[in-house]
Amino acid sequence: MAEAETRRRSRGGGGAARRAERTAVSVETAKYIERNIPNFEILTEEALEIIETNAETVLAEIGVNFVNNPGALELWRNAGAEITGERVRIPRGLARKLCSTAPSTITQHARNPNRNVEIGGRNLVLAPVYGPPFVHDAQGGRRYATMADFEKFVKLGYMSKWLHHSGGTVCEPTDIPVNKRHLDMLLAHMTLSDKPFMGSVTEPSRAQDSVEMCEILFGKDFVQENTVMTSLININSPMTFDDVMMGALEVYAKNNQACIVSPFIVGGAMAPVSVMGTLTQVLAEVMAGIAYSQLVRPGAPVIFGAFVTSIDMNSGAPTFGTPEASQITYGAGQLARRMNLPYRSAGSFTGSKLPDAQAAYETANSLNMGLLSGVNFMLHACGWLEGGLVSSFEKFVMDADQLGALHKMAQGVAIDEDSQAMGAIAEVGPGGHYLGCAHTQANFKSAFWRSEIFDFKPYETWSEEGARDTMALATERVKRQLDTYQQPPLDAGIHDALVEYVAKKKASMPDAFM
Amino acid sequence: MAEAETRRRSRGGGGAARRAERTAVSVETAKYIERNIPNFEILTEEALEIIETNAETVLAEIGVNFVNNPGALELWRNAGAEITGERVRIPRGLARKLCSTAPSTITQHARNPNRNVEIGGRNLVLAPVYGPPFVHDAQGGRRYATMADFEKFVKLGYMSKWLHHSGGTVCEPTDIPVNKRHLDMLLAHMTLSDKPFMGSVTEPSRAQDSVEMCEILFGKDFVQENTVMTSLININSPMTFDDVMMGALEVYAKNNQACIVSPFIVGGAMAPVSVMGTLTQVLAEVMAGIAYSQLVRPGAPVIFGAFVTSIDMNSGAPTFGTPEASQITYGAGQLARRMNLPYRSAGSFTGSKLPDAQAAYETANSLNMGLLSGVNFMLHACGWLEGGLVSSFEKFVMDADQLGALHKMAQGVAIDEDSQAMGAIAEVGPGGHYLGCAHTQANFKSAFWRSEIFDFKPYETWSEEGARDTMALATERVKRQLDTYQQPPLDAGIHDALVEYVAKKKASMPDAFM
Repeated sequence: MAEAETRRRSRGGGGAARRAERTAVSVETAKYIERNIPNFEILTEEALEIIETNAETVLAEIGVNFVNNPGALELWRNAGAEITGERVRIPRGLARKLCSTAPSTITQHARNPNRNVEIGGRNLVLAPVYGPPFVHDAQGGRRYATMADFEKFVKLGYMSKWLHHSGGTVCEPTDIPVNKRHLDMLLAHMTLSDKPFMGSVTEPSRAQDSVEMCEILFGKDFVQENTVMTSLININSPMTFDDVMMGALEVYAKNNQACIVSPFIVGGAMAPVSVMGTLTQVLAEVMAGIAYSQLVRPGAPVIFGAFVTSIDMNSGAPTFGTPEASQITYGAGQLARRMNLPYRSAGSFTGSKLPDAQAAYETANSLNMGLLSGVNFMLHACGWLEGGLVSSFEKFVMDADQLGALHKMAQGVAIDEDSQAMGAIAEVGPGGHYLGCAHTQANFKSAFWRSEIFDFKPYETWSEEGARDTMALATERVKRQLDTYQQPPLDAGIHDALVEYVAKKKASMPDAFM
Repeated sequence: MAEAETRRRSRGGGGAARRAERTAVSVETAKYIERNIPNFEILTEEALEIIETNAETVLAEIGVNFVNNPGALELWRNAGAEITGERVRIPRGLARKLCSTAPSTITQHARNPNRNVEIGGRNLVLAPVYGPPFVHDAQGGRRYATMADFEKFVKLGYMSKWLHHSGGTVCEPTDIPVNKRHLDMLLAHMTLSDKPFMGSVTEPSRAQDSVEMCEILFGKDFVQENTVMTSLININSPMTFDDVMMGALEVYAKNNQACIVSPFIVGGAMAPVSVMGTLTQVLAEVMAGIAYSQLVRPGAPVIFGAFVTSIDMNSGAPTFGTPEASQITYGAGQLARRMNLPYRSAGSFTGSKLPDAQAAYETANSLNMGLLSGVNFMLHACGWLEGGLVSSFEKFVMDADQLGALHKMAQGVAIDEDSQAMGAIAEVGPGGHYLGCAHTQANFKSAFWRSEIFDFKPYETWSEEGARDTMALATERVKRQLDTYQQPPLDAGIHDALVEYVAKKKASMPDAFM
């Protein structure tokens, strides 16, 4: 592989190494966000207590279904739940008590330790879009995603300063058999990026493959002792835990790997049309799922997830960036903090078919709300389009750029003497201007966050340069980032072992497309 | 005029009136927002006290300039300030004490009393873009604004459900002489809309004309006893109060009309590059301006204004929707509330040349922040483009649509028994769906805010319909709104008196273009 070759050559000659260093593209990644601003708390204590009481009622009286999973039913029965068929009714207080063994913060390790992330507390870790079967860009339009697209998105994620995480299924590589594509996806995350990533959840056996590939990458003992994957376990709302997702959760929990336990809710379809009703169901579902993870392995790392969107009652289409989804996200954050659990929600959500104004309004609504609602892990933080059916190349870099604004906002307001700038106000005085004053000269480089995509040029200059809209500017940025991408170094032995594992696994079974 | 004709004819025949009623376009206007959610408070008590102390130091030791305004200097001297040339140094505590006579809430009357607004408290009143010399739309591109454009914007504002206010200079009608255009602008607001509006501030005499036209519209006594205009008085930051703006403020204060006293700050140019420094200057300037309004007339209605944006230090261009501007807006809201004054800030800000993704990201950042920062009067809430140089027809309706989301968000979360939806959760149960359940049927119409512009259709349908982006959908909406616009009724005598006043004033002076 080219990367390994480069490393060997670099080692061989100091001159080449120095040349490589001089020409290396900086792939700076910001540290995960450590908030220095308050959370926005939309719910009163009264509202929170109502939801918590009602959620216990839901678990005790209505219950949840664990489908095709006799082992889970057995675990629940032994823990004191009432089992009727596949229905699990959980006595008041039991689920919350079981959840208390889950850690409040998760350190997810990356193969580059500088890129480890702390998920929990006041932190916010940003990961890209997950799951779309289609991709879209200006040149090629909308089309089924391929492995080549997948690799491009992993490279863009690696190049994005404000993304802390490489994510998981950045798009579905539909040209690879379903039963094998997780291998190629993981190999791409492991070799094309050095940021933390997610494991496969589409079959318990694929979760096991993910663990085994991590054991090659990190070492077997390291994986058992540390969290190296954060994977997405969706709850089949309302209140159904299917065997595939639970099977994957079981594998990860047993191997000390983190799961996001996440209701997947289009309000009005999978949950009531009201905010209070949805929050009640979200809390009941998350408590049941996380309690189950702790039955599998007490102390297993988990994240309180909430994927919530509203519905257009005229057409039945899901809608994004809406005020009701924001209210639910704010409220779920409060509920998660009261359980002392890391919280996953929000993202670059939009229902638009293009990375246009609709997409940006909806996305900005959700990103801002995600920051202020105390989210600790934001999946889908960039690149989401068309209700999650499409990963957009242009929107990926547009959103990723906006994530920089979240970093700056989260820093809060410095109040030290230099920041008070009383000397500058005295120096400039009434009617003066600050552009040349000493305080401005000393601070201007870090004073203002700056978009690397948006255009601030005068109209005339912008016109002469082709009157490009944001999408055109983003197309250019995608190309520039992919053109300048350089693979992060990886030990050649590890690299070869991963490639060999993937090849062997693929050869061990016939292609399957479901 | 056509409108008066229509009214006379309607009066003449009951059948025609009933027909008119049946075919009348609904021009529903939402009530101003009454927040049922908390404000986001970014500054600690310590930070707020530092700013307040430092602002007093600025006023006492550096002072502010009142330019070409001997009367103002005299008022300040008599109040206890130290005057040196045009510099006014205000002893600690004096400005804040003077500000305490300003009312905490302003009722601004509209000619349609259903459209009166309460500016202050937990309310948010939304008004359109103010000031651009250019307009832009998809067909005509960017061009100098004319009176015909102005009238279209007033009509669009009247048709916008989520706009509570008709605004002021929705664009500069550059085809009308500068010394006469305020007359045409006011006539348009008074006759084409029945929402509240703003007065002229470009000369004290034009403020006086505004008062006199309001006396025709509302009656002389009514104007003296009630606030019928809210006008924009910009401070020439740093710390300079020019005679034109102060002259207009004096006219309005004496006539019991409201003024927004508003520093106009591009951070790094008119204020320090730091958030704390800018907030200190903003507070000092606002306190000096509002204190002056209370010297002119104790109890005069005023609004604590803050127009704050950042700068691109590479090009010197102002930038919008940035995190630093958000931090300042949040902080200024806290400072305004501690003075018990209504607060004006935020808006549909963007530096983009097109209503594209950049425009929408930046605008959504600012609109969301405006809602959460406790703004009471949001000027520029829709239609702003290119750093305020351009009023965009498409962006006007796009932004105005998003304002609906702010209304829904501000309602907060209902916690009554029906909202808790426990019956629905029990009815549907694990694995069911909520689309048909009784709770959904009873609530779906009001459950979710719905955009009237965005597209939520499936990709195939959207494609067949022309694969339109948001701008194309907005172009269509602008046309539809203007096509269906119907003038609100106005007493024919008042109408004619206004027209006559404008004609006489115009005839009384030669055209001037400055």
